[in-house]
Amino acid sequence: MYFLLKFAPLFLAVSVSHGWLFGDFVGKQKELDEISLWPLPQKFQSSAVAFKLSPARFQIVHAKESSAGPGCSLLENAFRRYFEYMFGEVKKHEKNRKKAFDSDLVELTVWITAADPECDGYPSLQTDESYELSVDASAVLKAANVWGALRGLETFSQLVYEDDYGVNNINKTVISDFPRFAHRGILLDSSRHFLPLKVILANLEAMAINKFNVFHWHIVDDPSFPYMSRTFPELSQKGAYHPFTHVYTPSDVKMVIEFARMRGIRVIPEFDTPGHTESWGNGMKDLLTPCYSGSTPSGTFGPVNPILNSTYEFMTQFFKEISTVFPDAYIHLGGDEVDFSCWKSNPDVRKFMEQQGFGTDYSKLESFYIQRLLDIVAATKKGYMVWQEVFDNGVKLKNDTVVEVWMGNKMEEELQNVTGAGFTTILSAPWYLDYISYGQDWQRYYKVEPLSFTGTDAQKKLVIGGEACLWGEYVDATNLTPRLWPRASAVAERLWSDKSVTDVGKAYNRLVQHRCRMVKRGIPAEPLFVGHCRHEYKGL
Amino acid sequence: MYFLLKFAPLFLAVSVSHGWLFGDFVGKQKELDEISLWPLPQKFQSSAVAFKLSPARFQIVHAKESSAGPGCSLLENAFRRYFEYMFGEVKKHEKNRKKAFDSDLVELTVWITAADPECDGYPSLQTDESYELSVDASAVLKAANVWGALRGLETFSQLVYEDDYGVNNINKTVISDFPRFAHRGILLDSSRHFLPLKVILANLEAMAINKFNVFHWHIVDDPSFPYMSRTFPELSQKGAYHPFTHVYTPSDVKMVIEFARMRGIRVIPEFDTPGHTESWGNGMKDLLTPCYSGSTPSGTFGPVNPILNSTYEFMTQFFKEISTVFPDAYIHLGGDEVDFSCWKSNPDVRKFMEQQGFGTDYSKLESFYIQRLLDIVAATKKGYMVWQEVFDNGVKLKNDTVVEVWMGNKMEEELQNVTGAGFTTILSAPWYLDYISYGQDWQRYYKVEPLSFTGTDAQKKLVIGGEACLWGEYVDATNLTPRLWPRASAVAERLWSDKSVTDVGKAYNRLVQHRCRMVKRGIPAEPLFVGHCRHEYKGL
Repeated sequence: MYFLLKFAPLFLAVSVSHGWLFGDFVGKQKELDEISLWPLPQKFQSSAVAFKLSPARFQIVHAKESSAGPGCSLLENAFRRYFEYMFGEVKKHEKNRKKAFDSDLVELTVWITAADPECDGYPSLQTDESYELSVDASAVLKAANVWGALRGLETFSQLVYEDDYGVNNINKTVISDFPRFAHRGILLDSSRHFLPLKVILANLEAMAINKFNVFHWHIVDDPSFPYMSRTFPELSQKGAYHPFTHVYTPSDVKMVIEFARMRGIRVIPEFDTPGHTESWGNGMKDLLTPCYSGSTPSGTFGPVNPILNSTYEFMTQFFKEISTVFPDAYIHLGGDEVDFSCWKSNPDVRKFMEQQGFGTDYSKLESFYIQRLLDIVAATKKGYMVWQEVFDNGVKLKNDTVVEVWMGNKMEEELQNVTGAGFTTILSAPWYLDYISYGQDWQRYYKVEPLSFTGTDAQKKLVIGGEACLWGEYVDATNLTPRLWPRASAVAERLWSDKSVTDVGKAYNRLVQHRCRMVKRGIPAEPLFVGHCRHEYKGL
Repeated sequence: MYFLLKFAPLFLAVSVSHGWLFGDFVGKQKELDEISLWPLPQKFQSSAVAFKLSPARFQIVHAKESSAGPGCSLLENAFRRYFEYMFGEVKKHEKNRKKAFDSDLVELTVWITAADPECDGYPSLQTDESYELSVDASAVLKAANVWGALRGLETFSQLVYEDDYGVNNINKTVISDFPRFAHRGILLDSSRHFLPLKVILANLEAMAINKFNVFHWHIVDDPSFPYMSRTFPELSQKGAYHPFTHVYTPSDVKMVIEFARMRGIRVIPEFDTPGHTESWGNGMKDLLTPCYSGSTPSGTFGPVNPILNSTYEFMTQFFKEISTVFPDAYIHLGGDEVDFSCWKSNPDVRKFMEQQGFGTDYSKLESFYIQRLLDIVAATKKGYMVWQEVFDNGVKLKNDTVVEVWMGNKMEEELQNVTGAGFTTILSAPWYLDYISYGQDWQRYYKVEPLSFTGTDAQKKLVIGGEACLWGEYVDATNLTPRLWPRASAVAERLWSDKSVTDVGKAYNRLVQHRCRMVKRGIPAEPLFVGHCRHEYKGL
């Protein structure tokens, strides 16, 4: 804990003059009504001593010792964003530093300690998101790189609260924080309904507020293909709901990636095959398997056709493009819910099965396809994520493959098997947020313990996180954001905070305030229950 | 059917030249893909002959014979509203009437036939909302008064569709329409969460699009009292979530009423007593019953105190104000879910029970209170609505009382009893839209047949309508509108259209288009299922 080593002497001195209770310094949170941190930091100590923040005087600055400076646009951008969160859109203030009072906090100093602050980099699975924050007469945020600093800035902004005069206050606080799990994702589905860019960006903003760090972009599926490919433009021209109004252009995709990067969020695109590909067939002749009705083609199509060389040539080119468009080290390749009935109906496929000696086991054909696809993607130097069926079917996977466990049935057994085989895994089964019900279902999501399965410590370490999934059957721009927030916040805390943070009653009190904070920041997060926010949502 | 008498000869002539199928003229709807009327009109006939509407030339005008003219601001306002719905916010068009083509429809003529068009009136339970609409080389909308005209304007605007060029078209059509039920309501609850004015107005707009005609404003309840009373300002000063930001001022209330009136919507406020009144107690000393713990007051309060004269003096003054603020002939007085435990605990109440000879039957005390309240309200010349318990408890009701059946349990028995006793009734039991579930629950709401209970024709006639209720536990400005629409649209069609309109598959196709129409008009109505709208929602 470098935090204790470096900061402790400083705070010890201060604590004497302010009567700080140093005894439980490394203890769990102290409850203060006015503080509503979400997700709860790992180590947290606060006192009743408060400082005032004036929008005319307060600023966020780089520490002299920091490896990042004004040239670090990611941080500069974050400083402005968090200033606005705290003070709103302040109209032209005359800077007036002379009149600062002793009770003012005038500065938050951000100190990046690593030689490379990673200002122009991308977050990754290995990213260190830890940070140390101390607030006193002066305030210091210390992190190895910009990614930890982003998390610390969010926490700092959450410490700030309005007093009865509407003045921003912050209490003397020490925080040492880091995530419990490295992969904390949200899945959005832009195929079942097209999600306008504005909706995606707003949800990336909400993700950052909740310290999520992976946007799992389930970008295409059966109903539509909104991804505009440079290599195969026909895919969206013919596969999107509309070739102009319902697509993501290359520059839209860039914008999503950059907006996410600025918030420490990875963008992992999912191009799910061989099932869930109906929309691909519109723009790519011969890609899908022609289904037969008796001895003649029925005119409908099934999964990707695994028996043609052209399929693999297409996939090679397509994923070459994808691997350059998306900077993240991982691509999600899907592999879920393959329906064998069309393959079974097709005489050419049946003949291929015979030639390969697969008998009538079509999961072998599925594995045959997936295996070749994985090799194609591996050649682009990318890692891959897959849905659990790919593992279940015995496909040979690279060591760094992430297996996503989504089936609620026998979830713990699956985690045991996947980690037992030595693969890293993420959990989404308990967090399918498209399934709605009356009442406070966030509590159900909150109560999940991802490591409750039977396994060794080594196995448990292979669970690198989880994802809240909002499949698109029933959501679009009209209702997605309030349906996702604050229900996904429950998952956010489960994946970030210590395992011991499980008190639903206390969580409720903090989450009520956290959702009002999201509302104040312009995110239409729905209410948990009866009540009100000081600043109600201004939209519809 | 004056429609047939007056219009038939005209259309007969036209039908010959255009090959109109006159045989099923008075039959049910003809299915045309491009037409998505909702709720479905009672009598509807369309042909494939289409006319184009140019935003530069099209206008809605008063018929020469109409009793309404440019002085009728309600209609003038509606003309502009529907023009904008059809053409969007058209930027400065040069009027160019010379270039009208034969294929153009240049005018909709609105003909109000009654001597009094009711331009400055309010809709009522007795309002005639029927209208006749004919669209051909010229288009005429005929209605007894402005209320029917408003419904017809909505239908006209729904007939207009964009062709592949984005040009507005309308098909040759004849419609004769009227509502099946006179009371078609939406209940919103502004106490459990405060609903900003903007949200209420947007939902009134959506109501008009769905031909709802009653806004049942459950304005106050236990959690908060946002109604700002001129007579008793302390009620909101101390009972609202916040005395300034979370209240409805007299001018807010006026605005709601006027906005509703302009759309043919009645505003029926509910001031629910004697239960559901916790928030009243903050600003009105001695109004609520002090609960006892043993022989001493516990500090908590129960329902309105029915044993004090001051209670009735307060109610007299309060409802005198309410009766002048709200123009509708009805006030909803609540009367549901009275918890007797506090009354039972209070020694003064027990003594009163004894004096009155009520024994230990506290429903008699409840009835005693309600009876006096009803007399107070009747003295203001208002009618009243009550929840079903008031009837169930045997309170003596005025003949014109509307009993609202809300309990799902034994609903049909209750309808039988209420109508058997000769009272008018409305049904909300099957339409509690706050209860959400995964999937297309609108179908469940759609399938309800309000008159399926056992009873005479006279009894069935006493069912004057129904209400979709969106109680406020889990909704506020962030999520109310998409949660209500288009789910409430299912109720809208059930209450407006003919009993025979029950095909869920056909309804689905029309409702998909209807919800896209709402989205296009700026209402964030959520999707029914996978798909897209040509114009997606622009907000969040």
